[in-house]
Amino acid sequence: MAFAVAIEMIHNFSLIHDDLPEIDNDDFRHGKPTNHKKYGHSTALLAGDSLLNQAYNVISNELSYSAQNKYKDNTKNKIRAFNEFTKATDRMIVGEYLDTELEGKQISKEMLEYIHVNKTGALLKLCVRMGAILAGTTEKDIERLSIYADKIGLAFQIKDDILSEEGNPEITGKPVGNDKELGKCTYVSYYGLEGAKQELEKVIKEAIDTLEIYKEKAEFLRQLAIYIKERQK
Amino acid sequence: MAFAVAIEMIHNFSLIHDDLPEIDNDDFRHGKPTNHKKYGHSTALLAGDSLLNQAYNVISNELSYSAQNKYKDNTKNKIRAFNEFTKATDRMIVGEYLDTELEGKQISKEMLEYIHVNKTGALLKLCVRMGAILAGTTEKDIERLSIYADKIGLAFQIKDDILSEEGNPEITGKPVGNDKELGKCTYVSYYGLEGAKQELEKVIKEAIDTLEIYKEKAEFLRQLAIYIKERQK
Repeated sequence: MAFAVAIEMIHNFSLIHDDLPEIDNDDFRHGKPTNHKKYGHSTALLAGDSLLNQAYNVISNELSYSAQNKYKDNTKNKIRAFNEFTKATDRMIVGEYLDTELEGKQISKEMLEYIHVNKTGALLKLCVRMGAILAGTTEKDIERLSIYADKIGLAFQIKDDILSEEGNPEITGKPVGNDKELGKCTYVSYYGLEGAKQELEKVIKEAIDTLEIYKEKAEFLRQLAIYIKERQK
Repeated sequence: MAFAVAIEMIHNFSLIHDDLPEIDNDDFRHGKPTNHKKYGHSTALLAGDSLLNQAYNVISNELSYSAQNKYKDNTKNKIRAFNEFTKATDRMIVGEYLDTELEGKQISKEMLEYIHVNKTGALLKLCVRMGAILAGTTEKDIERLSIYADKIGLAFQIKDDILSEEGNPEITGKPVGNDKELGKCTYVSYYGLEGAKQELEKVIKEAIDTLEIYKEKAEFLRQLAIYIKERQK
C-alpha cells in the first residue's frame, strides 16, 4: 500500500512540474486550472519538489516499520522495490528532459520510442514490477510481467496519439489534430492513422499473450490491457 | 559515504531550484552563472528534480548492498538514516516555501527562527545526526549532538546576516547592506549589529559546551563551530 501511495505522489509531482511554464506551459489539466495557475509558479515548483520527496518519506516509513516489526522477512523485497522506484523515477525525468529538449525537432522513430519508454513507460513498468517484487514471485515471473508492462506502456502512447488525431475533444479535453498542427512526431505521423491502429491491436495482443500462463489469475491485467486499447480519454 | 554523497546532491538540488526565476531569480552563485542562466530554465528545473531523486538512488543502492552483504547488521541504522533524510529534506522545502511566501512581509522573530531552523538548519542537523546514527551511538549521544547541531545551524544564519551587513563584498560575493535595502527581517534588524555579534558568541559557546563530555574526540566539531563564527564568506 505504501508503495502505491508513493507512486501516486511521483505521478502527481511529474504532472505539476510538466505543466509549468518552462516545460509544457499548460493552464488546464482535465478541465481544472493547473497548480501554478491556481497557486503561483514558486508554490507549484516547491509542491512538486515536496511530493517527490514525500514519496520517499512514505517508503522510508514503510521500511522502518518493516525492519522493526513482524514483516521483517519482506524488508529485502521492499529495499529492492525502493531501488527500482528510484531508477524508474530517474528514467521518467530523463524522458521528460529529452521530450522538452527535442520539441519541434524531427526525431527518428527509435528516439520517439525511447522517449516514451522512459517518460511514461518507466512508471507503468514500475507499478507492475513492484507488485511482483513485493509479492515475492520468482525472477522468471518478474521478467515475464515486465514484458507485459512494456507492451501496455507502448500501447498507452499509441492510443494517446490516436486520440489526439480523432478523439472526441469533449471527452479527451484536448483539441483534435493539435499534435499535427504542432508538427509533433507521433505514432500517427509515422504509421498513419490506420497503421497506428493496427500497431495498437498487435501490441495489445502481444501483451495479453504474455499472460497466458497465468490463466484466470491474470484477468485484471488482461482487462487493463483491453481498457488501454479502448479508452476514449 | 553514500549518505554524504546523497546530502551533497540534496544541497545542490536546493541551490539550483532556489536560484530559479520564480524563487530568488539569481543570475550568479559564487561568481559563476547559475544553472538556469547557463542551461536554460527547463533544464535547471529537471536537473534539480533529478538530483533530488538521484540522492535517493544512492541511498537505495547502499541499502540494497547492505541488505545482501556483510554489512547486514547496520541495515537498521541505515534505514533510520534514510528516514531522517526524507524528513530533513521535507523541512528544508517547507522552510524555502515559507521564506518565499513571506518575502517582503514583516514577520516575528519566532517565524524568522522557524524559517531558518527548517531552511538551513534541518540539513546541517541531519549531517550531524546521520553520522551519529550510522556509527551506532547511543540515543543520548544522538540527542546531545542534535543540540550542538541546532546551535551551529542558528549561528550559521546569524553570521550570514552579519556578513550581509558588514562583510567584504569582494570576499562574500554579495553587495553590503542588501538585506537592509530589501527590508528583510534578519538577526541584525532584530538585535542590531552589536547585539547580533553578542548573540553569535553566546550561541557558539553553548554549542561548544555541549561537546565537553567528548573531550578531544570532538575536536573537529569544536573547530567547525569556531569556523562558522569566524568565516568571512
